[in-house]
Amino acid sequence: MRTVLRTGALRDLRTSASTSLHSNFRNLRGRTTCRLPAVSCYGFHSKSQDCSEALGTAAQLPEAEPVLSAPPRERITIADIKERRAKAGRLIAPTASYSDADMFKAPTVGKPKAKRWDHHLTKESTLREPCKLKQAAKHLKQPGLISLGGGLPCPEYFPISSLTLHIPRPPHFSEAATLADGEDVTIGKYDASSSPPPPPKQSSPEPPPPSRQQVQQQPEYDLSIALNYAQATGSAQMTRFVTEHTELVHGPIPYADWRVCLTVGSTSALEQTLRMLCDGGGVASRRDSLLTEEFSFSTALETAAPLGVGVVGVRMDEQGLLPGDMERILDCWEPGLRGGRRKPHVLYTVPSGQNPTGATQGEQRRREIYEVARRHDVFIVEDEPYYYLQMPDKGNGKGEGRGVATTGDVEEFLEGLIPSYLSMDVDGRVLRMDSFSKVVVPGSRLGWVTASEQIIERFIRHAEVANQGPSGFSQVILHKLLDERWGHEGYLRWLMNLRMEYAKRRDVMVEACDEFLPRELVTWNTPQAGMFHWLKVNHELHPHASTKSILEMEEEIFNSCISRGVLVARGSWFRAEQDRPPPGLYFRATFAAATPENMREAIRRLGEAIRESYQI
Amino acid sequence: MRTVLRTGALRDLRTSASTSLHSNFRNLRGRTTCRLPAVSCYGFHSKSQDCSEALGTAAQLPEAEPVLSAPPRERITIADIKERRAKAGRLIAPTASYSDADMFKAPTVGKPKAKRWDHHLTKESTLREPCKLKQAAKHLKQPGLISLGGGLPCPEYFPISSLTLHIPRPPHFSEAATLADGEDVTIGKYDASSSPPPPPKQSSPEPPPPSRQQVQQQPEYDLSIALNYAQATGSAQMTRFVTEHTELVHGPIPYADWRVCLTVGSTSALEQTLRMLCDGGGVASRRDSLLTEEFSFSTALETAAPLGVGVVGVRMDEQGLLPGDMERILDCWEPGLRGGRRKPHVLYTVPSGQNPTGATQGEQRRREIYEVARRHDVFIVEDEPYYYLQMPDKGNGKGEGRGVATTGDVEEFLEGLIPSYLSMDVDGRVLRMDSFSKVVVPGSRLGWVTASEQIIERFIRHAEVANQGPSGFSQVILHKLLDERWGHEGYLRWLMNLRMEYAKRRDVMVEACDEFLPRELVTWNTPQAGMFHWLKVNHELHPHASTKSILEMEEEIFNSCISRGVLVARGSWFRAEQDRPPPGLYFRATFAAATPENMREAIRRLGEAIRESYQI
Repeated sequence: MRTVLRTGALRDLRTSASTSLHSNFRNLRGRTTCRLPAVSCYGFHSKSQDCSEALGTAAQLPEAEPVLSAPPRERITIADIKERRAKAGRLIAPTASYSDADMFKAPTVGKPKAKRWDHHLTKESTLREPCKLKQAAKHLKQPGLISLGGGLPCPEYFPISSLTLHIPRPPHFSEAATLADGEDVTIGKYDASSSPPPPPKQSSPEPPPPSRQQVQQQPEYDLSIALNYAQATGSAQMTRFVTEHTELVHGPIPYADWRVCLTVGSTSALEQTLRMLCDGGGVASRRDSLLTEEFSFSTALETAAPLGVGVVGVRMDEQGLLPGDMERILDCWEPGLRGGRRKPHVLYTVPSGQNPTGATQGEQRRREIYEVARRHDVFIVEDEPYYYLQMPDKGNGKGEGRGVATTGDVEEFLEGLIPSYLSMDVDGRVLRMDSFSKVVVPGSRLGWVTASEQIIERFIRHAEVANQGPSGFSQVILHKLLDERWGHEGYLRWLMNLRMEYAKRRDVMVEACDEFLPRELVTWNTPQAGMFHWLKVNHELHPHASTKSILEMEEEIFNSCISRGVLVARGSWFRAEQDRPPPGLYFRATFAAATPENMREAIRRLGEAIRESYQI
Repeated sequence: MRTVLRTGALRDLRTSASTSLHSNFRNLRGRTTCRLPAVSCYGFHSKSQDCSEALGTAAQLPEAEPVLSAPPRERITIADIKERRAKAGRLIAPTASYSDADMFKAPTVGKPKAKRWDHHLTKESTLREPCKLKQAAKHLKQPGLISLGGGLPCPEYFPISSLTLHIPRPPHFSEAATLADGEDVTIGKYDASSSPPPPPKQSSPEPPPPSRQQVQQQPEYDLSIALNYAQATGSAQMTRFVTEHTELVHGPIPYADWRVCLTVGSTSALEQTLRMLCDGGGVASRRDSLLTEEFSFSTALETAAPLGVGVVGVRMDEQGLLPGDMERILDCWEPGLRGGRRKPHVLYTVPSGQNPTGATQGEQRRREIYEVARRHDVFIVEDEPYYYLQMPDKGNGKGEGRGVATTGDVEEFLEGLIPSYLSMDVDGRVLRMDSFSKVVVPGSRLGWVTASEQIIERFIRHAEVANQGPSGFSQVILHKLLDERWGHEGYLRWLMNLRMEYAKRRDVMVEACDEFLPRELVTWNTPQAGMFHWLKVNHELHPHASTKSILEMEEEIFNSCISRGVLVARGSWFRAEQDRPPPGLYFRATFAAATPENMREAIRRLGEAIRESYQI
């Protein structure tokens, strides 16, 4: 299963016995053969030449004959990925192995490379150099070399010899089912390096068909690897999982040289991205601004403010950000009228279940926004924590329309999701932020970004000094759960189940609003994704509309809510432009956390508070 | 065991039933009684008023009568902490609880507060505002309140119902002992919220003395808490552990208002600290510089460079940084001769087992450097990953001298450690960075910083948008291991054992150098701490000393090493001032990673490479 890679056509930094870009060399469906490497092997950005110069050796996959790729199918399937993995054989990625998405993704022959974004990068980002100590590790590829280089502790001194998780078996995801019928899986310290288990005895003439349990391979990841220092990009093992997952959900991505980098969550990813693209402070800076929805995630705003980055709010409707208003802002931009700030070149958007409005951009809306971005050379930061929480219409348990499949078919689920910006990104102008926080556990502090190789390379250079990548505990636990035990299909079934759970909660909240809120004053759109319900209160009908400001009304109702025992978020907290009065009277309520009974009671109290303020 | 806190004397933000600063109110040795709160309760910096405005409720400890503190003893002991915990009772810190060191530390009555550092903070740091959503959570303290505020997922949807670790029982730390006689400990999802286990039956008239196993309390931390969103400061549970540990090792700290904040490791802590204190970029900036050892940790230099922060190297001897040279640089500073940069106001130093030189500052050296810092208003960043790897003299298994106790007495071990800058910091001008990377596992990406309340508050504001705190998996696993199972004493025994393991490795390397290196050319000091051995090669004796530069000799020997199969780090990689020629010919070799046999062989090869270059 493992042979030696023929590396002649590869660039120097990758010509070593321990480096493999096999996936670029293979038609995974095995049609025709050719020695040409894939497009994405050539023309690396000079700054990225150090990508493969790593603290440890490069992750290693067994090799096969380079073959010419046929044009890829429209969508990559789980079966494709299984076949690819089976052909590739066992992933050998010891401590601190270098890896990148190219090692694991489908062939990209014939696709164009992403555009260059040099003119968008800040001085800080441009000045970043690779870590010298990680560069030196390229010598580790030399057979027989003894390293007295990096100060990596010996795993002998790691005081945890195994970790055992109790987890659900798909599709029986409930807590009760897990308690009754879940499985215990153990991660040992040297699982990946010990000899593989002996093959099962086949004494009977007609052996039973192998079950998943029986064909289980030797683990590819263990505590000795996960708990030592690693690449800032994250482990090869999790890089493979998120690369394949990204292809399954968003593929085929229109350009060739896309990459991924694991993050310590999207909070961190956004701060790194802003420092990479937006130069805010100081007299000599570019005085950059960020475009975003007129109501935007308050923590994102709080990330931009101390960097001196301006924020410009784009008007919204029930599908979120309005491309026409974005175009108007960009067309009419005059630095003189904008405090000397130059025309914005970055859009930060939450396309699905936007925080705080709950709005979800439809496919056509996304395409229109993308075209505005192209016309004005705007880079798009696509923040999608709630992407998989796309829900059926209220009460529609049958799953009609986009993103609403409730039956058991995983491919149907994927087909139903609204296409991402990443999936329509012909230029490589999108950086997509994904996170396990909302769909597995927030405490993992684990997510990933996907973008062009140039952008990811600059992002990695920052991650090397900003955090050195995510927790090894988080990586090895999620790898065991998602990759080794559940696999892509099990994880997608988990997501399908989870969004239905959130849909039920959403329905409870909307029904409570129907029942308890004064409909002549309060309006809303039923959220199609996410965790948030956004309530508009008609401020013009307030008895003191002529004397009280929107902020005063908002405060009065908020305080009345608190005294009645309900906490909602004030709309004004989310104003993109904090120095402007809010355009309306809004409240955000989450249906993620409270029990159904408490949600109903809370909305009842909110209704009382509104009625009191409006004296009805 | 649990009573209601009398909060009248506390500032408003803390007057709530769920807030407790009990430790400030109690003499933990129970001498006399008084209603005066501790000094550190008053005079909060205005920016820090939001400290207690949290995503969740504040951590809660049962309360006792406020009592007047006697002056604290010279060193806080494990017995003191056990007594304090016993009196405090069970820690109740549900999801996203706010906590700070004041909740857990010994009384600080009579101590001065730290100085103010406003003039040291950057504009970016000064501009930071608390997260609005976390502020709103102060309302959660209200009894009966239903929150539709924060978007925290329901733990029902966390797909891991328990985690079981296999760990050593102190003091039997070896892998073999752990395999044979370690224990399995399990972290459940709702361990902290379920009813406490029933008390053991006491049917016999004379019950046996309770063992640790038997008196085990209900756990205070579980997966439902650890895996949800949390404060950026980290969990209350781990905050308590590192606060107490810091007191045990460095206490009594001379000023009252010190605090801690958990970090995602010291890599991240350093980047945050530099952005807080050093303003490097742009024409209108302060053009700050950093003082550090003339050979310094290369990743630290790579963190400073893209921020535009200058680096000034201070000369060193076998004890590291020379206070006289530091004073000379500061006395003679002229911005005109330094590219317009203002006089440095921050020192970055690794006092123990410095990277790359392995030098360890003795107590007197540290006091001298601290005094220079005071005279010139310099803030000290004390980076101490190797602090606990202080070793006995080579071959001295008996443990004489400072930091070398090898007997089983934990107090003796603590007494033997060289005092930290934190322990001598009368002004609050030190930010100390600690990490579990080198002494537990690097993959935890978990550490903590200790500094004055003002500095920690600004640090937290950044952590809220930079990473939201460390991984919950890392926190709950290390809490189970270090706090719940081992306790402070077990952890200190682990550290005592670990440094002896490193001392053995150090001895192997130094003996190999004795045997294989040409002593007429190569000199070194035996490392007294850490993981690194620093070799000086006399470049003046090189046969081509008149024609070859030091960098050329270094490259020649390095390349010869590689071709002979050994990787060492080149001294020039660590030059603080990268644009200057190195002051000598050096190589760094780590004794952390290779086996003893490989270390000897690697040093033999290095000896060959040097001899070849010197033609001997």
